[in-house]
Amino acid sequence: MRIDIITCLPRLLDSYFAHSILQRAQQAGHVEVVVHDLRDYSTDKHHRVDDYMFGGGAGMVMQIEPIARCIRSLQAERTYDEIIYMTPDGERLEQRTSNQLSLMQNLIILCGHYKGVDERVREHFITKEISIGDFVLSGGELPAAVLSDSIIRLLPGVLNDETSALTDSFQDHLLAPPVYTRPAEFEGWKIPDILLSGHEAKIDEWRYEQALARTRARRPDLLDRHLGTGNDKMP
Amino acid sequence: MRIDIITCLPRLLDSYFAHSILQRAQQAGHVEVVVHDLRDYSTDKHHRVDDYMFGGGAGMVMQIEPIARCIRSLQAERTYDEIIYMTPDGERLEQRTSNQLSLMQNLIILCGHYKGVDERVREHFITKEISIGDFVLSGGELPAAVLSDSIIRLLPGVLNDETSALTDSFQDHLLAPPVYTRPAEFEGWKIPDILLSGHEAKIDEWRYEQALARTRARRPDLLDRHLGTGNDKMP
Repeated sequence: MRIDIITCLPRLLDSYFAHSILQRAQQAGHVEVVVHDLRDYSTDKHHRVDDYMFGGGAGMVMQIEPIARCIRSLQAERTYDEIIYMTPDGERLEQRTSNQLSLMQNLIILCGHYKGVDERVREHFITKEISIGDFVLSGGELPAAVLSDSIIRLLPGVLNDETSALTDSFQDHLLAPPVYTRPAEFEGWKIPDILLSGHEAKIDEWRYEQALARTRARRPDLLDRHLGTGNDKMP
Repeated sequence: MRIDIITCLPRLLDSYFAHSILQRAQQAGHVEVVVHDLRDYSTDKHHRVDDYMFGGGAGMVMQIEPIARCIRSLQAERTYDEIIYMTPDGERLEQRTSNQLSLMQNLIILCGHYKGVDERVREHFITKEISIGDFVLSGGELPAAVLSDSIIRLLPGVLNDETSALTDSFQDHLLAPPVYTRPAEFEGWKIPDILLSGHEAKIDEWRYEQALARTRARRPDLLDRHLGTGNDKMP
């Protein structure tokens, strides 16, 4: 898979993609992440990529020209499955979206900044608009990193233990059960006895009950979807 | 405001806090962000901070001991308003949460990693659990950066134009209207005539209608909250 990220603040993302599983995934050839500085595509002598908004108002708007030039130069090299714009009014990111995008070959992610991009970019170039939630950030760079991370960790071979992603929260509409590690007692706080029993089936049952109870308490909306999938095989 | 971030991968966050508005906000003294390497608080000779989970299963769990030591050493220096754990089963981050947290003095943000932290950390140290959405990431570092960014940009003096944050999406439960900048025509794609009219009141009305229409189409759930706030003052 290849992910091209277009941003006017490329250095924001430097250390993120240079560390953690994203670095290892790139070194192992599972994914290639290329960050493009939008200013390189500006024809303005000061490399500007934003301007005042028509009709007046506070905040700057990202111009269509550098973005069009950047996207077209990438499209001249390869075909893209989706050209994604990170924006707070986009479709809310859910695990299902990440699952679907992880099956694709080439993605472009455009990071919004300032008051956003000229609307004509969205009308004529963007194929998918994604939001990571109902809150405002200083730019689309963190959301682009979030989306990339959620996709890349699903690519075959990226996680060390292939079963690990399958037991995460949300993959079956259940929150994960509580987890514990050593020491078994810390300042008088003990772990549940069941986890020391060595009885695998009972531990599985306990974990499923805990996951159900936690989902019921914290996210009843998810529980309906879990029960609707026929995943409730445990007693 | 001071934000202490506890992580086992501190370098992931390097470039993020070294650029953009977060750098300027720190240089101007509006906020101090301190990233702590959890491994510095490990008593293990290999600086380990994770271990296998009790009861068996794939994935590692972050141990309580280094986290307890780190949090207590910070608490010895100052009082914290909240000790926040970034976790997919936490309360969903919304703009309101960021608004509230932006009024506080000292925050600790603990980044989960691997399969999460030992449950006893959550029971005995954490005062607030926050999720940025229903998707799984490789760690809590990006969510911690997202939360920090959403808070810091609200601090007085951080944004250049103080009115800028007020017209963002979500502050009044409305999505933002479309925005346009130069050129007024690009490859035959023109901006709406109204924006060139110079008629401020009509432009405001057009923008409000566009914001309403966009919110109705994309986020009818928000629209109910907007209308419920008595914000619908426009004709």
